[in-house]
This record gives sequence, C-alpha cells and structure tokens, in this order.
Amino acid sequence: MNTQQPRTIAIVGAGVIGMSWARLAHRHGWQVVITDPRPDLGELVESEFGVGQRVSWTAELADAVHEADLVQENGPERLPVKQQIFTEILRAAPADAVLATSSSSITASLIAAGLGRAERIIVGHPFNPPELMPLVEVLPGNKTDESTVTRAVALYTELDRVPVVIRKEMPGFVANRLQMALTAEAIYLVESGVVDVKELDAIVQNSFGLRWSTIGLFEAMALGGGASGVRHLFAGLGTEVGKIEFGRPSTDPAVRGKLIEDIESAYGTGEQNFQRLVTKRDRKTTAVLEALTKADDQPAVYTSPNA
Amino acid sequence: MNTQQPRTIAIVGAGVIGMSWARLAHRHGWQVVITDPRPDLGELVESEFGVGQRVSWTAELADAVHEADLVQENGPERLPVKQQIFTEILRAAPADAVLATSSSSITASLIAAGLGRAERIIVGHPFNPPELMPLVEVLPGNKTDESTVTRAVALYTELDRVPVVIRKEMPGFVANRLQMALTAEAIYLVESGVVDVKELDAIVQNSFGLRWSTIGLFEAMALGGGASGVRHLFAGLGTEVGKIEFGRPSTDPAVRGKLIEDIESAYGTGEQNFQRLVTKRDRKTTAVLEALTKADDQPAVYTSPNA
Repeated sequence: MNTQQPRTIAIVGAGVIGMSWARLAHRHGWQVVITDPRPDLGELVESEFGVGQRVSWTAELADAVHEADLVQENGPERLPVKQQIFTEILRAAPADAVLATSSSSITASLIAAGLGRAERIIVGHPFNPPELMPLVEVLPGNKTDESTVTRAVALYTELDRVPVVIRKEMPGFVANRLQMALTAEAIYLVESGVVDVKELDAIVQNSFGLRWSTIGLFEAMALGGGASGVRHLFAGLGTEVGKIEFGRPSTDPAVRGKLIEDIESAYGTGEQNFQRLVTKRDRKTTAVLEALTKADDQPAVYTSPNA
Repeated sequence: MNTQQPRTIAIVGAGVIGMSWARLAHRHGWQVVITDPRPDLGELVESEFGVGQRVSWTAELADAVHEADLVQENGPERLPVKQQIFTEILRAAPADAVLATSSSSITASLIAAGLGRAERIIVGHPFNPPELMPLVEVLPGNKTDESTVTRAVALYTELDRVPVVIRKEMPGFVANRLQMALTAEAIYLVESGVVDVKELDAIVQNSFGLRWSTIGLFEAMALGGGASGVRHLFAGLGTEVGKIEFGRPSTDPAVRGKLIEDIESAYGTGEQNFQRLVTKRDRKTTAVLEALTKADDQPAVYTSPNA
C-alpha cells in the first residue's frame, strides 16, 4: 500500500447503493471506477460526477477492478449472479485487493462455496445510503483470511465508516436481525389496531430512535438502572421481557395489503414524492451526524477490537 | 382554564423522573409544586431550583395537588401504593385536573379498579428523562373520560412533548414492547457470542438508531423500497422476517450474570461514572434535538389524530 497514491475503489453495480459508495469514496479523495452492464452508465456517471480523472466508468468488469484496493460489489441478490461476478473479479483484481460484497443476505461462505480461491472475499454490508450511514457490517466467510478482515476494516475506516466485524454468519447478520425483531412487533401492533402507522413512527422517533442515535442499547440500559447500575434494572427487566408475548405479522394477504395501503397513504407514492422524502431524510441525517460529532467528547466511531 | 395564569403541575414523587418533569414544567413557565415523603425534600428542591415562588414543595400530598392543572404521579411501581396515592389525589385535586401516572407498567384501568371515581385518571408515560425525551404515551383506562384524554394531550403539548394516545392497554404499552422485542434479540446475540456489548451498541447507534432519530420505522421502510415503494420491499421482507428465528435471552442465571458483568465492564459502575455518562447522554440528546428542529421543514412534533 502506497499511502502517497490515492486509493482506488471499483464499484461493481451502479444502483442506489453502488452510486452512494462511489460518492463516499470520491468525497474522500479516492479514485473511483464504476462498472455496470446498463447502457446508460456513461450518462449516469457523468451527470453525477461530471467528466473528470477521479471518477471513470466502463462496461468491462475486468477493466474496472484491475487497479482496485477495494472492490465493492452491489449486484443483484442472487447467489449464482454473485458467484459469476466474483469469478470475474478474482481473475482480474490485484492479489492484495479486498473483494467485498454489499449483500445483506448472501454470505461470503456461500459465494466462496462455488469458487476455488476465496480468501479475499468478504461481506461489507452498509446501511442505505452508505455515504451517510456509518455502519459497515464486516463478515468474513469460512475461507476468508485474517489479513483480508484487517485490510477491509482499515479501508472502511479510511472512508470514515464504522466497521464492525461479525464472526458468525447468521440470517440478517446483526443489524437487520435486530431491526426485524422490532419490526415484526411493530407490524403486529399496527395490524392489531393498537396504533396506526404514523403514531408508531412518532413513538419510535421520539423515544428510542432519539436515544439510540446518541448512545447504544446496552449503554442506555446501564443508565436506566440508575447509579445502582444495570444489576438493579435486570432484576425487573428479566421478568418483564419474559412476561411479554411478542406478536408476529399476520400471514393473511388481506391484512398485509391493508398495511401496505396504510403506509402508502401515510407517506405517499411515486418518484417525486420518493425524492422529496429521501432529500428530507438525508438532510436530517446529515444534521444529526454533525450534531453528534460536535457534542461527543470522543470520536463517535468505534472500531472492533477483533479487527 | 385561565390562559393568563400560568399552569400548575403537581409532581408526586421526587425521584429521577419526578424531578425531570419538574424541570420541564419550570422551563415552560409553569408553577411547580413537588411532594414526596422523603425527609430531605426541601434541600433537594432548593438545591435544584433555589428558593423561588414558582417551585415549592410540601410533604402533604393534599396541599400539593389542590390547585393543579396536571398532577403527574411518579411513585413506586406497586399497584396498592398507586391506588392509595390516587385516592388521596382524587380527594384534594380540582375537579378538572388531569390525574396522570408516569407508570410504565400499571394501567389506568388497574388503578381505577380499586377506586370509585376514576374518569380523570390516565397514564402519561414519559421516556427518561422527560425533560429531553419528547414522547409521552397517553393511555386512558376503561373508566377514563374523553375530555381527560383531550386535556392531557393539550397539556403535554404545551410542555412541548409529543403525546401519542394508545387505546389498548397492553403489557409494556407500545414503545417498551418494541424496545424489548429488539432487546431480547440483542441479548441473545451477545449471549451467543456473535458480537460483544460494545460492538452491538456500535451497530445500533450507527445504523437504525441514527435512522430512527430522523424518520420513523414505516417511513424508513417506505424509502427502503425505492421509488417503486413499500409494495416492492414487502415482497422480500415478508419472506425474510418469516425465515428468521429470533432468539430469546437465556434463563440461566450464570449466563445472565456474565452479561451484566460485560455491560458493567463496558460502561463502568458507581455514582461518578453514572453522572458522567448521563451528562454525555443528555448533551448528545440535546444536540440531536436541536439539529432535528433546524433540519426539519416541519415541526418534529406529531399529535395523534385520535386526540
């Protein structure tokens, strides 16, 4: 690694996630090469970044990855497609490049199962949009070597992300498992008529959403117990968690259809509406990130000691 | 209600939650009367607010509530104690006062079950600390009259909180049910060795914590589906949520003990440490709230259409 040279990232797949990775790396001074089979790739890249030396595009995957420090793959969530893409990447990428997939569900072990060499393949699962959301879940597969884990963590840290290394490959990884456990209960509560979609969102946003943007879940729990600590809290909490029967979303398509209608009616539909909401989300996210950076006595980033 | 006169709040119970309600009401120009049997009440109130006309204290509950617009009870979480307190409150409070409990688990219906008149008793469950966390879950009981619901929502809104009316009394209400569904899975993941306490907190804070401070859960879901909307997302999500077997915390006391030790070792113990962490939490929470207020195109508050 020559630290005098800017890093190079190869973005494989120019969808929403891929283009956001591209903006993140570009903002950090990296060379960006974007590849995608879509016929309008050139227009897309040039309308976003202009025509410059630091962001280029090519329809040829091999050309895109051959000088990459980090290959970030954002293709379709289908295993055979991933395996084919990674076969091509392995053939053309430098021997020390980190080969990462943004997949939220396909593990490095699954991709590796179809390939001879796979020690540099790893999951680097971002939150949408990766240019704003700090977390990257880094999941090595059963063939991934340790130096790839170390290097992936270092590269994501250079991009100002917060990589957390996860050593067990479970469905949903960690963040989505947690989200989905809560979402299942949220859908149940709305489907049961306890609250409506907007009421539930107001509850989330004005309580633990706000809380968990500032401190984590276990830290909040430690403080919930008062100065006498988490021991005190757990005495009660253990019982309460045990007592509650959490709900599950209905399997009735009519009930599901009603929920979808309720969400659409609460937040609207269509391209223009979507763009307006995304702009608002990103403006608020940026504001919160800036506020947290200023308010914290320490950097908000946390790098796994496993790494 | 004479809007020329400042409102009066009676704080029953001067613990962490009660004193935070007192600061909130004081900040909004309300008269505050605090009552608690603790012998050091005078010292506590005067060290917090000085000696002034707008905040007073008394050991006599009847004296505290007799001019209140809002009685906010924060006593021990034991039903017979609540019933005794509310019997005394009913005897002394004005006929149009809202009589609210901060309880997170005892419903208005349960309190009312032991009392003859209960139409003004309601749950007004805050998040800790109520002076910073906007949400107040407002739960009428089976005897609560509609004008009490309306009045409670109006008073909490005057205090710049976000009241959400919940029409079904379920264990954990809504916010804690949601939190606990996620917390159960979080404890399971730590107890299973997938991630440690600090890694889990980093994941929460840097992904959906940040997300849910800016937009709600269903709004985030609507955006996750892209411009084609939540219909698109649900096709996949329904399947994924159904596939995951969520975990539950271990019932083994040794495993629970290890978790408590891990949290204590991650975040420390003792009074000084607690105060330091609370100060940091509150500083960051304030910063995020200010940032959200500035960044939003609309006020961040949401008042239930049920109200």
